[in-house]
Amino acid sequence: MTKTVYTFGGDAPHDDPRQGDKTITGGKGANLAEMASIGLPVPPGFTITTEECLTYLAGEKGFSDGLRSAVADAVAHIERATGKRFGDASPDGPGPLLVSVRSGAAISMPGMMDTVLNLGLNDETVEGLAATSTDERFAWDSYRRFIQMYGDVVLGVNHGLFEEALEIVKEDNGYYADTELSAEEWRTLVDEYKSIVASELGEPFPQDPHEQLWGAIGAVFDSWDTERAKIYRRLNDIPHDMGTAVNVQAMVFGNMGDTSATGVAFTRDPSTGTRRYYGEYLINAQGEDVVAGIRTPQYLTKVAREEAGAKPLSMEEALPDAYGELARVFDLLEGHYKDMQDIEFTVERGKLWMLQTRTGKRTAKAALKMAVDMEGEGLITREEAVARIDPMALDQLLHPTLDPEAERNVLTKGLPASPGAAAGKIVLDADTAEQWANRGDKVILVRVETSPEDIHGMHAAQGILTARGGMTSHAAVVARGMGRPCVSGANGISIDRTERTLRIGSREMKEGDEVTLDGGTGEVMLGIVPTVDPELEGDFGVLMEWADALRRMRVRTNAETPEDCRMARSFGAEGIGLCRTEHMFFDASRIRAVRQMILAEDEAGRRGALDQLLPEQRADFAAIFETMAGLPCTIRLLDPPLHEFLPTQASEFEELADATGLGVDHLKRRAGELHEFNPMLGHRGCRLGITFPEIYEMQARAIFEAACNVKASSGEAPLPEIMIPLVATRRELELLRALVDRIADQVFEEKGIRLDYLVGTMIELPRAALMAGEIAEEGAFFSFGTNDLTQTTLGVSRDDAGRFLGPYVEKGIFARDPFVSLDIDGVGQLVEMAAENGRRVRPDIKLGICGEHGGDPASIAFCESVGLDYVSASPYRVPIARLAAAQAALKAREG
Amino acid sequence: MTKTVYTFGGDAPHDDPRQGDKTITGGKGANLAEMASIGLPVPPGFTITTEECLTYLAGEKGFSDGLRSAVADAVAHIERATGKRFGDASPDGPGPLLVSVRSGAAISMPGMMDTVLNLGLNDETVEGLAATSTDERFAWDSYRRFIQMYGDVVLGVNHGLFEEALEIVKEDNGYYADTELSAEEWRTLVDEYKSIVASELGEPFPQDPHEQLWGAIGAVFDSWDTERAKIYRRLNDIPHDMGTAVNVQAMVFGNMGDTSATGVAFTRDPSTGTRRYYGEYLINAQGEDVVAGIRTPQYLTKVAREEAGAKPLSMEEALPDAYGELARVFDLLEGHYKDMQDIEFTVERGKLWMLQTRTGKRTAKAALKMAVDMEGEGLITREEAVARIDPMALDQLLHPTLDPEAERNVLTKGLPASPGAAAGKIVLDADTAEQWANRGDKVILVRVETSPEDIHGMHAAQGILTARGGMTSHAAVVARGMGRPCVSGANGISIDRTERTLRIGSREMKEGDEVTLDGGTGEVMLGIVPTVDPELEGDFGVLMEWADALRRMRVRTNAETPEDCRMARSFGAEGIGLCRTEHMFFDASRIRAVRQMILAEDEAGRRGALDQLLPEQRADFAAIFETMAGLPCTIRLLDPPLHEFLPTQASEFEELADATGLGVDHLKRRAGELHEFNPMLGHRGCRLGITFPEIYEMQARAIFEAACNVKASSGEAPLPEIMIPLVATRRELELLRALVDRIADQVFEEKGIRLDYLVGTMIELPRAALMAGEIAEEGAFFSFGTNDLTQTTLGVSRDDAGRFLGPYVEKGIFARDPFVSLDIDGVGQLVEMAAENGRRVRPDIKLGICGEHGGDPASIAFCESVGLDYVSASPYRVPIARLAAAQAALKAREG
Repeated sequence: MTKTVYTFGGDAPHDDPRQGDKTITGGKGANLAEMASIGLPVPPGFTITTEECLTYLAGEKGFSDGLRSAVADAVAHIERATGKRFGDASPDGPGPLLVSVRSGAAISMPGMMDTVLNLGLNDETVEGLAATSTDERFAWDSYRRFIQMYGDVVLGVNHGLFEEALEIVKEDNGYYADTELSAEEWRTLVDEYKSIVASELGEPFPQDPHEQLWGAIGAVFDSWDTERAKIYRRLNDIPHDMGTAVNVQAMVFGNMGDTSATGVAFTRDPSTGTRRYYGEYLINAQGEDVVAGIRTPQYLTKVAREEAGAKPLSMEEALPDAYGELARVFDLLEGHYKDMQDIEFTVERGKLWMLQTRTGKRTAKAALKMAVDMEGEGLITREEAVARIDPMALDQLLHPTLDPEAERNVLTKGLPASPGAAAGKIVLDADTAEQWANRGDKVILVRVETSPEDIHGMHAAQGILTARGGMTSHAAVVARGMGRPCVSGANGISIDRTERTLRIGSREMKEGDEVTLDGGTGEVMLGIVPTVDPELEGDFGVLMEWADALRRMRVRTNAETPEDCRMARSFGAEGIGLCRTEHMFFDASRIRAVRQMILAEDEAGRRGALDQLLPEQRADFAAIFETMAGLPCTIRLLDPPLHEFLPTQASEFEELADATGLGVDHLKRRAGELHEFNPMLGHRGCRLGITFPEIYEMQARAIFEAACNVKASSGEAPLPEIMIPLVATRRELELLRALVDRIADQVFEEKGIRLDYLVGTMIELPRAALMAGEIAEEGAFFSFGTNDLTQTTLGVSRDDAGRFLGPYVEKGIFARDPFVSLDIDGVGQLVEMAAENGRRVRPDIKLGICGEHGGDPASIAFCESVGLDYVSASPYRVPIARLAAAQAALKAREG
Repeated sequence: MTKTVYTFGGDAPHDDPRQGDKTITGGKGANLAEMASIGLPVPPGFTITTEECLTYLAGEKGFSDGLRSAVADAVAHIERATGKRFGDASPDGPGPLLVSVRSGAAISMPGMMDTVLNLGLNDETVEGLAATSTDERFAWDSYRRFIQMYGDVVLGVNHGLFEEALEIVKEDNGYYADTELSAEEWRTLVDEYKSIVASELGEPFPQDPHEQLWGAIGAVFDSWDTERAKIYRRLNDIPHDMGTAVNVQAMVFGNMGDTSATGVAFTRDPSTGTRRYYGEYLINAQGEDVVAGIRTPQYLTKVAREEAGAKPLSMEEALPDAYGELARVFDLLEGHYKDMQDIEFTVERGKLWMLQTRTGKRTAKAALKMAVDMEGEGLITREEAVARIDPMALDQLLHPTLDPEAERNVLTKGLPASPGAAAGKIVLDADTAEQWANRGDKVILVRVETSPEDIHGMHAAQGILTARGGMTSHAAVVARGMGRPCVSGANGISIDRTERTLRIGSREMKEGDEVTLDGGTGEVMLGIVPTVDPELEGDFGVLMEWADALRRMRVRTNAETPEDCRMARSFGAEGIGLCRTEHMFFDASRIRAVRQMILAEDEAGRRGALDQLLPEQRADFAAIFETMAGLPCTIRLLDPPLHEFLPTQASEFEELADATGLGVDHLKRRAGELHEFNPMLGHRGCRLGITFPEIYEMQARAIFEAACNVKASSGEAPLPEIMIPLVATRRELELLRALVDRIADQVFEEKGIRLDYLVGTMIELPRAALMAGEIAEEGAFFSFGTNDLTQTTLGVSRDDAGRFLGPYVEKGIFARDPFVSLDIDGVGQLVEMAAENGRRVRPDIKLGICGEHGGDPASIAFCESVGLDYVSASPYRVPIARLAAAQAALKAREG
């Protein structure tokens, strides 16, 4: 029969591998058993498995006879190990056994679930405790703590009632701290607490320690399913079906006088990563006092106390023996776990007890430093160092952040759509953003939601703030791509474009007023909050170098401007995976020619307008080729539906009418004709190239002329990879490859230069993935456009998904937002199929990914598993991708 | 070496199977050889293969030495067989060899490609011909015909110049018919023709017969690639890469006096199918005279002449010997080919020569009659009879058609979007359509384009006419589904909704004016043109019975109304494959409650509105269950995005504001919030059921209550199959199946009745197809929604595809419109994968198709090949589907 309860401490055996499996005994339970097994002082106890939690939650919330008898045996184990007995009220024995009951899931969810301490006290055992501890005050204080905690957590009594009663006693007596209450006053308060419970519940506070225990176990199980726990799990990608274990453990007391204490500590500084003990403790206190902040905890080490200029003695000074023992334990634990540990301990009358150890959370900066240091210390290998860093945590390091010391006046909060901090003057449209930025202002573009027309304004702005749209809205996606901080879907905003004013939260503001965004939290603040620049100092560089040495996949970037290219190269990009040429079309100086091209009645009209665009595009490409010298550059020909370029405002129509000599009505009619019901599935991508070949001809010419010019001037030949978007059939690629080859020949002839180049396609439609074998006959490379491939495979429009993605993740339909992390089962199946079929037909085909997923570690791991040659990410995600690629390669090597 | 030229007639062997392969020698060439091989009188000749045509067109348009020598040998064969020589001018031999040069593709393209007759004549041989034929007039007439035809076809001289010159001669002499010209006059005209050629081309008319021959061969090859030929192939789904063969054949002359004649004939009446010879002939004429209509041809048989009350003698009477020989050939050919033959013949001085035979085209009615008759005659089997009918041709029989005798005043022409004829008063919106129809008017709904809101108006109308949209626009698809005639994309229409007027072609009209549509041709006619009703008499029923006995797949229908259900049953539907419940939501009496439901701020508000809809939906379903008694009914729960139901007109907003007490601004804001960028990929399908479960609860309740009521009242239990749309994941179906099961249990409990029912899903997203194994764990059936599956797999919005589908088909990117005929390579791959994976997990899973493709024969054949259980088609397509399913089963049996 599968064991449901595991004991630890005392003489408990630790030979069942399930006890060390966090998915069975939870993180806390597994680590307590582990500590006990290596001889550390752990109060004896037992763990009820997560499996029992799931059984309990799935059924009628009762306990099986099997569990009841296993728990009875385990309680007997604690009694044996401590020599104390549950419910023992005798005044001259070892005193009653008291236990703590704590949750402990496989993945830590700090503060999310419930704990009960001092369980086992009742009207009789409290007297036994008073007698045996010879500390009546301690006994009654412990009892009132127990009633308060149990009343709140298990019985559901409003904890404010207890706090109020305590406050009255303190006020009546003029006390400031709880420690001032006498034993008698605590005893009176216990009576008060019991009557609160009785009047709230209509029945007395339970006196039977066994009844108390089962109540607490049930409460811990139930706490897995509270709303706040569910939300926490959703936010942290923790599955809902893991359940929590319950740890029942003999109480040890940090509140038994001045030789007792309790504390939390880290084996290194979790904020900077520096190798020195770090923590705080309280003399004569129980664990929750440290957390609750009722008393100010003291420093653990002398040096920390001195640095802070604090007076109260550090533990090193006040309890030198216990501290020495603790330091020994620190070193033992780091050596054992080979990582920085986060520890809870209690000193009971001079004796150290370990209550918890776990791998400690840390800042990104600390994580890097520790990994590099530990490698230097010989504690871990380079591979382990690389594997240990959460790639997403690097994001913190790569953007300017708000000065943590600065004051913040938060106006409203939206979604943290693109990380980093940005401050500047509010502007309400993209043109104003550009104008003001050109005259030297820092601006924040505020829109209801953005559209492709806003790109130039988004580029010009320091940050973007939208009233609507989610984490994957246009604003969010483009901002992340550009590395611009963005707060999206800030509901507290309403904009009056006519008056050029807006309301943020309760505050009326106008264009030009200053705000600051924190794209990492979603906060919108009044005025300019100072920021600090990222420091990509030593440890970052070292770890990245190790990662680069380990990874197999190349990392490219998605970039259109020389600035983005430069930034991406500084972040380690090894080429461009996606240059979206349409972003160049929105430039103010070009949009008129673009619109003329679109509105032209015939090919001749289109060619006239395209002739104006040719030199502009050529200059764009030349700048990119120069910046990316020697690296491959994948350039995607025009992709979006043409109507995205058309005016929407009346004033723009008038301006265009003036410029073209065509009437406003005519232009509006033409614009109406171009309207599409589902532009995502409309006249776009290579369909434009098929129906208006002159557009792709111009773009191909601009690319090849630029490449020839750069080669002539720099001597270094660019490596253009021309990408045909939205291909669904072999024939499309065949026709358009012929077009590109023809233009290449013309230009090479004209210039007297020949260059290597590739023509390939984006695999972004299910049909393209299904027919990849055929398509590979025509294309030298595939770049998986997983944004669009996700949209079509799942039938979900990214721009419209906001209405149901939330409920979909909540109800477990999607494990994660499929636009953030690749849907490996569905979309991944197509990617794998296409990669295999493509390689079957053309063994040397280049395979890469250029969707948003190219910067997502889980998706990158998938790309490694199907053997792609590279991933392409937005510039700020390049380091994340480098690290994730290395981790994926490591995992593949193991697997 | 592969043979490039095949001879026939004379002593030519016919043992090479390639000669009988129409893809190599073309239909005409293969049939000429076949006729010669069974001993029929065929003028000797040879065929140059289609392969040579493709080689010629792909290269520099020259002829290889191999071909030249093979043609020289083949000419020698003709010379041997006829005893005549090419270029022989001697006055006392057998006369010069003259040949015809004709195209002949594998699939007949009548009138599309070029022919040259009398080739071999020149200034010298014409004299030889005159002498040896002892008919100078004939010789010179033949020569001038040759120059005219060769000048036009090979040399590119405007044929109007020749006709003009002839007219002048006739006018000058006061002649009416060409036959009145004398030998001398023809000779003079030949001089005139030659100088026309010389002055147009700057060089004389070619005199060398071999040069003439090669010119004609090249011209025939070139004619494969003319614009008109390409268009014909596109319209008739003939591949562009087949090429044409060239047939060179000794000339025989129907214009050698009164014992000579030429004619065309069918072995049965191609219009009615009656078993009697049918055709026409001309005495003393060449083949093109019959076709050109210069002289009125005479009847072939005496009985036909008498029935028509015509005077000129029939061939039976005028040339009884030749006629007797012809009748013998007719019977021989029908017996040989086992099908009705379309024949060209010439009688030269009393001797019959066969110039062509091919399987004759026929009306749908005739096709049915012949198939049934021939089975009765023992000529063919039932299987052959069933295999022989083109399922699409049945469409002609199932709709009222315009009286062919009636006069037509065509105003404009659009696309033939849904077949049948309809006449009525113009109405410009759906509400007016309904009102006028309710008061008894027949109306034609005219819209720029239709939207789902127009459904009730489309139902009320006799036919639909739109100014925009293609063959697969909303109007076209819905109209075909309803069996309403529809002309879409009639560019000649502009509508002024304010004035309630419109312009059709050059004519100003107003609402209430009468027009007639021919949905089979796209014509829009002024006034009411009388129509004739379809007759589904004997042969139709017999053949359908045979088909039903042969097919494996069931045929269901897509229908929502009891009328459609009744019609579909009368057409043989065996259940409902798709009942789109949203069509019931647009009804005028319900739309207000639907809108209230959508605009409600919370669940309670939605439930209130849904309560109003429940009895209405229940009544709908009850009516359907009664009509389809005993047959399975697949009912799809609400599918489209909610904003499709919202008002668009200001007046509708005002009305709704009055009804709901909510302000117009509020309603418009709500409507704006519901706007989607890509509604096709938006908040629709089961996503509605997940986010607003109360909607699906109401629908499930309506279905089960109706089913229980019908069972109680009729004793016959309906077989509801509840279909969850747009599923992408197993979990969606799991959640919604649980919802449906829960409601079913509630209703069964309330009613005290239990019924069998199924819950399944539509496979209409690539992800659903990819994950079909998992999804089958939750669903009892899959219905392939290939409309949406095509949209998502190809990334093509049906509503927007009009802009590029044309060029896409033209450039060979799509072989056919993928919304009309399933993209078997791409979408079909997903269907097959899903069918296999679904059956692997659930061997008894029901599989069907309910997209538009369910009525397309090629797609139905595919469904048979992957083993689907049924296809579902719109009511008017049910007979087509029955026949196509039978043919598919036959093919599968053979394969």
